[in-house]
Amino acid sequence: MELRAIGVTVDSNDPERLADFWQAAIGFTRREGDGKPYITLSDSPVGRPLNHLTIQHVPEGKTAKHRLHLDLFVSAANEASSIAELEQLGATVITPAATGHLGMAATVMADPEGGEFCVVCRRK
Amino acid sequence: MELRAIGVTVDSNDPERLADFWQAAIGFTRREGDGKPYITLSDSPVGRPLNHLTIQHVPEGKTAKHRLHLDLFVSAANEASSIAELEQLGATVITPAATGHLGMAATVMADPEGGEFCVVCRRK
Repeated sequence: MELRAIGVTVDSNDPERLADFWQAAIGFTRREGDGKPYITLSDSPVGRPLNHLTIQHVPEGKTAKHRLHLDLFVSAANEASSIAELEQLGATVITPAATGHLGMAATVMADPEGGEFCVVCRRK
Repeated sequence: MELRAIGVTVDSNDPERLADFWQAAIGFTRREGDGKPYITLSDSPVGRPLNHLTIQHVPEGKTAKHRLHLDLFVSAANEASSIAELEQLGATVITPAATGHLGMAATVMADPEGGEFCVVCRRK
């Protein structure tokens, strides 16, 4: 199939708050005019739906571990500072990283709504 | 923070099967040597972890609607054929698309493990 782009949509109870967090965390910009029920963050010009993340309002709360999650890849040199920066933005560490598969180390963190994501780097 | 890449990881009970589906659906290639518990699909050369999707084996089953989901963007002209192609790959339509926010139409589908994703196009 002829694919134009791939995006990820995140369910949220408070899209403004969660969009603020992700906007600061990944450096994407908010698409003008967006609001509830959808806020889309993008690193590309408006109208080119590449590399974006949409936060959508839903009424129901989170009841289980995310079965899809975002991985933020950083260099090993920036691992500690990146985790500290995310904590300052409102994220928390759930499980510190241990070096695992293919030398990759993943720190499991939670966003301000408790959504799991990982900060990943290659340690060897 | 200095981000190198963003990826998405999908929990799976049968990574080989789910990786086959997503590989065919989005045209990414499988990283050589990958296997349980991780299979990574990528559209970039090995070692450059951009635009990829990782399928990871987990023992637990799906108990709730995905709180993150993938959006596959296609042109309006290719909408019907793309959905038909995904159905041939093992996906099913959960909710047919209605034109909504900003003229976007999203068909909610399920992958072979019942995971929700959307086929999205702009109809106006």
